[in-house]
Amino acid sequence: MAVTPASTSLESFDLDPAFALHRGGKLEVRSTIPVRDADDLSLAYTPGVARVCSAIADAPELAGEYTWVSNLVAVVSDGTAVLGLGDIGPAAAMPVMEGKALLFKEFAGVDAVPICLDCTGVEEIIETVVRLAPSFGGVNLEDISAPRCFEIEDRLRDLLDIPVFHDDQHGTAIVVLAALQNAARLSGRTLGDLRAVVAGAGASGVAVTRILLEAGIGEIAAADSKGLIHTGRDDLNPVKAALARDTNRDGRTGSTEHALAGADVFIGLSGSTISEAAIASMADDAIVFALSNPTPEIAPELAARHAAVVATGRSDHPNQINNVLAFPGVFRGALDVRATMITENMKVAAAHALAAVVADELRPDYVIPSPFDARVAPAVIAAVAAQAQVDGVARI
Amino acid sequence: MAVTPASTSLESFDLDPAFALHRGGKLEVRSTIPVRDADDLSLAYTPGVARVCSAIADAPELAGEYTWVSNLVAVVSDGTAVLGLGDIGPAAAMPVMEGKALLFKEFAGVDAVPICLDCTGVEEIIETVVRLAPSFGGVNLEDISAPRCFEIEDRLRDLLDIPVFHDDQHGTAIVVLAALQNAARLSGRTLGDLRAVVAGAGASGVAVTRILLEAGIGEIAAADSKGLIHTGRDDLNPVKAALARDTNRDGRTGSTEHALAGADVFIGLSGSTISEAAIASMADDAIVFALSNPTPEIAPELAARHAAVVATGRSDHPNQINNVLAFPGVFRGALDVRATMITENMKVAAAHALAAVVADELRPDYVIPSPFDARVAPAVIAAVAAQAQVDGVARI
Repeated sequence: MAVTPASTSLESFDLDPAFALHRGGKLEVRSTIPVRDADDLSLAYTPGVARVCSAIADAPELAGEYTWVSNLVAVVSDGTAVLGLGDIGPAAAMPVMEGKALLFKEFAGVDAVPICLDCTGVEEIIETVVRLAPSFGGVNLEDISAPRCFEIEDRLRDLLDIPVFHDDQHGTAIVVLAALQNAARLSGRTLGDLRAVVAGAGASGVAVTRILLEAGIGEIAAADSKGLIHTGRDDLNPVKAALARDTNRDGRTGSTEHALAGADVFIGLSGSTISEAAIASMADDAIVFALSNPTPEIAPELAARHAAVVATGRSDHPNQINNVLAFPGVFRGALDVRATMITENMKVAAAHALAAVVADELRPDYVIPSPFDARVAPAVIAAVAAQAQVDGVARI
Repeated sequence: MAVTPASTSLESFDLDPAFALHRGGKLEVRSTIPVRDADDLSLAYTPGVARVCSAIADAPELAGEYTWVSNLVAVVSDGTAVLGLGDIGPAAAMPVMEGKALLFKEFAGVDAVPICLDCTGVEEIIETVVRLAPSFGGVNLEDISAPRCFEIEDRLRDLLDIPVFHDDQHGTAIVVLAALQNAARLSGRTLGDLRAVVAGAGASGVAVTRILLEAGIGEIAAADSKGLIHTGRDDLNPVKAALARDTNRDGRTGSTEHALAGADVFIGLSGSTISEAAIASMADDAIVFALSNPTPEIAPELAARHAAVVATGRSDHPNQINNVLAFPGVFRGALDVRATMITENMKVAAAHALAAVVADELRPDYVIPSPFDARVAPAVIAAVAAQAQVDGVARI
């Protein structure tokens, strides 16, 4: 692709409304205070600012009150697993990270700054984020490829006393749990009644499997490209090996499609495809979440022939599993109480609160609220903040 | 100082208007585009954003057009030399860096994000900034102690293809050069007619000395706490040793005060004091820039008894040498042409443009414009952008 930023070629790009909208970027930094004259300047900058700096030097907790840090999240990516595009690098990842920052602000009033890093080593990313930490009240990891993302998040959670949250994992997990609870409820079941198969053991597949275990799913097995994950496999990375120990109680082996026979739930986070016959082999009142984007594992129209509830990741179909239902409120709730971390309980609480928003309006094509439902963020914020208090991780 | 963030003690802090103004910080991140509905979301975020990412992956220069990076400066500090407060650390430095970011936006429309780093090693700071570079269009280094600041800036200038500018050095230097040109002009002199003594060989002292050499000062010597810097000293760090080779052509030794006898210009950037007698010993039409804050090297009232022109760093006296006259326009001009660096010529051009703003209105108490003079930023921006073209560092 021979592209130069000459004005003629830019004009041809801008015929696409997505490019036109991105001209000059999607974010700006603004002052929240007036700077009209020398008096304003003498408070916002020298000499007045020196008194604020000295007070923070003496009592570091005052930084939470007198700087923007306590409302600020770093959206950190290395550009290695961007959307369905893969490893496109930090510069090309920026439009996604700007979009994420924009959603933080629009949906929950959280200020967010995209930080696209020119390094991909686990140690480099960890040490860089640790060095940046005084500038931020939270860290949202984004589009970092598996399995590096697991170690990076785990170690940063240990090293930092601010929330660290890999949205590709936990944002997806929270929304899937909420939607699955509601889908089960439609047929009078609870999570404990369900046997689920998760296709995909990358960031989102692992996190979804883990949160469903945490929330009490009856039985669950996950699969990667080689088939079901079980303790008999010797080709598993440490994260998958741990998953093998905690899941697939029945010791099933073989393909995802094979495991679907008689299963209650299929969750696709794999980018692969599932045959209509496999979906047809599931139990009555089957629940199919075909979440790969832009192409679901099975077309929702085909799945609907056999399943009671179908969800996708797409905005042009009902029941969209969209992370924006979770991450803005999760961080807002955590920041509001200066949480030192986001616990597993806080994630499950967010999912329960999200599910409850539409619990009295459930239909097979409406098991999860719209991203633009104004009830969502307040519900998630309140649940996360309250659970942080219960879990003892709130600082105010 | 026993301070806790209980509401009562915060209320007592907030009796100080500087604290009240800093409550919640001084900055926010905002979206520049609407996000009203799913259609907006599908352009600003998935799936539309993927087309923009792919285009940048194919043609990286498009990041300048379709992200906010080309208008974004990182204000990077390690908190080791903050105002006159010294090494107060990254958290306590944040109010100053927020203030700096605010000034970037208010005075020249440049978006800026404060990055306070939890590391002070030269190698750590350099590698961290290099890793962050894809997220920013420029780097403003701030309040990093000397002599580390020199190596950090020099090496980052070599490593990065975006402007890197240590404002404590070059912002001060540009404004001093502008004011000194105008002060000389008041008595019919040019820089080449002047012999100057600079007290202070930290970040600003070194940079002021260097830019005055570059601009053709007649003779100049700098002093540190041990006295004048000359080639006979064996206690000089590499930066001061280089200064010794390039300055003090007459080989003067001894104290700053001693060297002032017969000198035309005194520039104080030292935090020390100068006696009235030493100022009285200067040549006719002496020029005294006593720039230490909050306490100038000599009270301006005393200096005015003997000097033709007196400037300070204070907003409550005439002729304030304020970096905000330079850095917003310097970066705006550099970003506007996507300059790969800020050359020495660009700094001198900024100073000439700044001096020219008030060249037809000069008075002894008005050799430099007010920070709120609306003519300043456009003049500096135009000069810097034009010089970038001349120097071959402009990309558009």
